[in-house]
Amino acid sequence: MLRTHTCGELRIADVSKTPTLCGWVHKSRDLGGMTFIDLRDRYGITQLAFNMETNPALCERARKIGREFVLKVTGKVIERSSKNLNIPTGEVEIEVTELVVLNESQTPPFTIEENTDGGDDIRMKYRYLDLRRSNVRANIQLRHKMAQQTRSYLDSKEFIEVETPVLIKSTPEGARDFVVPSRMNQGEFYALPQSPQTFKQLLMVSGFDRYYQIVKCFRDEDLRADRQPEFTQIDCEMSFVEQEDVLNMFEGLVKHLFKNVKGIDIDIMPRMSYADAMKYYGCDKPDTRFEMKFVGLNDVTKSKNFKVFDDAELVVGICAKGCSEYTRKQLDELTEFVKRPQIGATGLVYAKVNLDGTIKSSVDKFYDANDLQKWAAKFDAKPGDLILILAGNADKTRKALSELRLEMGTRLGFRDQSKFSCLWVTDFPLLEFNEEENRYFAMHHPFTSPKPEDIYLLDDNKLGEVRANAYDMVINGVEVGGGSVRIFNKDLQKKMFSILGFTDEEAQSQFGFLMNAFEFGAPPHAGIAFGFDRLCSLFGGENSIRDFIAFPKNNSGRDTMIDAPSAIDEKQLKELGIKI
Amino acid sequence: MLRTHTCGELRIADVSKTPTLCGWVHKSRDLGGMTFIDLRDRYGITQLAFNMETNPALCERARKIGREFVLKVTGKVIERSSKNLNIPTGEVEIEVTELVVLNESQTPPFTIEENTDGGDDIRMKYRYLDLRRSNVRANIQLRHKMAQQTRSYLDSKEFIEVETPVLIKSTPEGARDFVVPSRMNQGEFYALPQSPQTFKQLLMVSGFDRYYQIVKCFRDEDLRADRQPEFTQIDCEMSFVEQEDVLNMFEGLVKHLFKNVKGIDIDIMPRMSYADAMKYYGCDKPDTRFEMKFVGLNDVTKSKNFKVFDDAELVVGICAKGCSEYTRKQLDELTEFVKRPQIGATGLVYAKVNLDGTIKSSVDKFYDANDLQKWAAKFDAKPGDLILILAGNADKTRKALSELRLEMGTRLGFRDQSKFSCLWVTDFPLLEFNEEENRYFAMHHPFTSPKPEDIYLLDDNKLGEVRANAYDMVINGVEVGGGSVRIFNKDLQKKMFSILGFTDEEAQSQFGFLMNAFEFGAPPHAGIAFGFDRLCSLFGGENSIRDFIAFPKNNSGRDTMIDAPSAIDEKQLKELGIKI
Repeated sequence: MLRTHTCGELRIADVSKTPTLCGWVHKSRDLGGMTFIDLRDRYGITQLAFNMETNPALCERARKIGREFVLKVTGKVIERSSKNLNIPTGEVEIEVTELVVLNESQTPPFTIEENTDGGDDIRMKYRYLDLRRSNVRANIQLRHKMAQQTRSYLDSKEFIEVETPVLIKSTPEGARDFVVPSRMNQGEFYALPQSPQTFKQLLMVSGFDRYYQIVKCFRDEDLRADRQPEFTQIDCEMSFVEQEDVLNMFEGLVKHLFKNVKGIDIDIMPRMSYADAMKYYGCDKPDTRFEMKFVGLNDVTKSKNFKVFDDAELVVGICAKGCSEYTRKQLDELTEFVKRPQIGATGLVYAKVNLDGTIKSSVDKFYDANDLQKWAAKFDAKPGDLILILAGNADKTRKALSELRLEMGTRLGFRDQSKFSCLWVTDFPLLEFNEEENRYFAMHHPFTSPKPEDIYLLDDNKLGEVRANAYDMVINGVEVGGGSVRIFNKDLQKKMFSILGFTDEEAQSQFGFLMNAFEFGAPPHAGIAFGFDRLCSLFGGENSIRDFIAFPKNNSGRDTMIDAPSAIDEKQLKELGIKI
Repeated sequence: MLRTHTCGELRIADVSKTPTLCGWVHKSRDLGGMTFIDLRDRYGITQLAFNMETNPALCERARKIGREFVLKVTGKVIERSSKNLNIPTGEVEIEVTELVVLNESQTPPFTIEENTDGGDDIRMKYRYLDLRRSNVRANIQLRHKMAQQTRSYLDSKEFIEVETPVLIKSTPEGARDFVVPSRMNQGEFYALPQSPQTFKQLLMVSGFDRYYQIVKCFRDEDLRADRQPEFTQIDCEMSFVEQEDVLNMFEGLVKHLFKNVKGIDIDIMPRMSYADAMKYYGCDKPDTRFEMKFVGLNDVTKSKNFKVFDDAELVVGICAKGCSEYTRKQLDELTEFVKRPQIGATGLVYAKVNLDGTIKSSVDKFYDANDLQKWAAKFDAKPGDLILILAGNADKTRKALSELRLEMGTRLGFRDQSKFSCLWVTDFPLLEFNEEENRYFAMHHPFTSPKPEDIYLLDDNKLGEVRANAYDMVINGVEVGGGSVRIFNKDLQKKMFSILGFTDEEAQSQFGFLMNAFEFGAPPHAGIAFGFDRLCSLFGGENSIRDFIAFPKNNSGRDTMIDAPSAIDEKQLKELGIKI
């Protein structure tokens, strides 16, 4: 080793030792008589001292050393006269006697500090420098710890990690595949997996009983903000279980992670049906760090000549506690908020429950004090509360009110990133109708089992009503994982493909291997996959996943550091038998 | 849970409990009055008993159940009258009272037994059934344990697992890349990584200090036997270290794995220079489970009018202890062996040291008893030993003798797959000359550092003599890992690329990001990568890696189970902007 200690290791008890350290010049201060250098490595920062009086030659050399130079230094540990108790090594410094510059550095294009002056583009181009920033490094270290603890929990529950292949077969169902031309089988292509779904199901058919994998998956989608073409899943599957067993097992995983990574005890993990989530939060991934549930108002608003409400399929509101004093300006902001095209409400109705108990609404023309008291009663609103109401098409109005609810949660400080509220959403619809393509799509994926008690609806042609044994884990309004009980019967799987518009031939050519496998003793099985990047960013208290990925891609799917993708040789194309 | 216990769990102490088990019908025996079913899951086998007298209806049902049906049974644990002490559950059986057939099974196309009647092709097509075989499942479980123990060791040494990207950039150096056409950047391609080499070096530049990853890598090569287009590496890198530190760290890993996975203590891990490996074993990955070192004989064979030896650049032999009684037939076999085209020797000379001390050789015409005694002395050969000699071009002869040595090792039973001999081979040449392309190639890769004391040879144009700080770990004659100290200086890296025939522009366009990174404070660093599939097969005592991969590809790179690669839609091609 070039060093005897790391830069995070020396303490007051080490005084008079003579360690050798290696690291980067984090900061340098030339005070004339003394020069101080903060030497940094992954483990911490240690102050180096150079004394013009006792060792002028060395001190002169130290003065010339720039930021981010790589040094190897030896010297005596001494107690610092002015201690820095903010860092663990802050009571000591090294009186350097030997100094080797292992490598020089140009001036970095941005500062290597938590709050850097570098913009996104330059940080990504020089990601290797960006990763030196303590917060970015901490994110990657958090990710490592998350993976360790995930494995530790699942190993203890007898799950086996099995690697599934990356070069698989393209299937048109679901998102778009990345494909890989085959040189040895010209004209044919592999696809990169969007998930190891079929393989993990085959492992259950093989009797592996409990499988997991922390695994890269790929989706060639137009990248919305904070989506990556390659992403990582914690992918799991179990045999001989029912939905309840899966929920308990992975509730356990999430609790284990909170406990062992964040030191947080999560006591309860409520369950909510999809129907209730939509009814009370207008959203299948409600942020339950705060209540502010939806209350339907059709019955208490109708027939008062307010056409907007009378014509509305749904009149629905929320009650923001303690906001009755909102100003005109604040209310206008909220109205503007819900009228933005991405939210699309046509207007916002409010009712302030004043401190004296009277109610003032924006529709006083239509509703008298008595009417408004009925509204307030519905919300159990108290003096000081503000009722916000939207109306219109049921689906759109719920969606808009959900956004307004989140906005109010943010304004009221309910969405603290250091607080965590976990929730299972269950009983998702099996299918959703796509107007554009005029057919049903699997809401989760084609392998999800309908609830046994709803199977009869598959034949009754009430496809939209069939519920699935499917579940999502939602934390702070973010869907971090989802899964389902799977179909394990060939005939039901065939029927499912047929409902999804596959001909028998298409189903057989694309998923024949799985349906064949179901003929050789497939066990009942169920599983789940967690979005690992997202889970890490959530634990790290940040919104973006990008800084929890060592080398992410930008919104055009480019790695600007290595400049990929890029053109390839004609020779390569020829070998692959493809043309651009 | 559908079960209360697994099929590997019940013991004599559980007698009179009433468990519920789930599993597959492994075997069924109808003895008239009684029917027995062996129920199998991942954890073991438990015998189920059905009694025609006490429960004829149930017994009738049991009789109709076929192999590999999936059952759920409840019953009482009773002591078996005829115990099977070969399995942990063999003292008890379940007197079944409830029987549910969870799924039926067609008759499998081959027997689900350790020694199956299924050939390779059918096993791969029905891999999900093949994986039910206890030995194949044990291999995959061994792999899991190897991964666990690898992580456990590296975690304890402060290595951080960091995921590097899978969609990277194609580089012409090295093996052929798999490429992925980019839809969002038409005409451009990603490449799948042959290794995370440059990324792990960038992580060192970032100050991650110690990195590892168990990671999929990809190589589009014509598949020789037992090569896979996708394979897994244990990939590691360390900063502020010298070669010796890396050897010690990863010697530690391998010892840890042997200890914790196999219960074997590996005491010594000798080091051998590449030069010595070639001199004494004719091979850079000698099988050191046995000695049988090469002995040069040019000096004691020349000028005796035996033209073959006189003209030979190298006369070299091995001494097979106790083989002097080999018959004519056996010696002919060995001669045939070395004359096979893939070995290519022109003939084999032997000298038997008879039990009476006299020596009988196949070249008695040229060498008298005195000469032969000199040969024997060179080998320290004793009565009963057999000396085998090859001659010719030095490189080819060494290679051929290396093969003969392995053949003799096999014949003498020295190559026991339950014995392990580990070795570091060090000081590899930096470059090797390729006659076809008339240029030097990096023996390891272009990022490997020459030995500091040999750097002057780079300028002296004695490129073939430059040694690298590169090392391989060899176990039982198999190269399981290799690595090197890396170049961390931009100018040296540039020079290296220029020696390898890159123009400055090519070097910059392909590896500019790495050379640029070297300008911002790159630390000294070194690393290693282990072939994880190979390491697992070695620990499993098998030659082929295929059964240590859950879903391997065949020699044409096909997955015959899912039928990949395959044709894709015209629409997909069009979106990607490529034509076949």
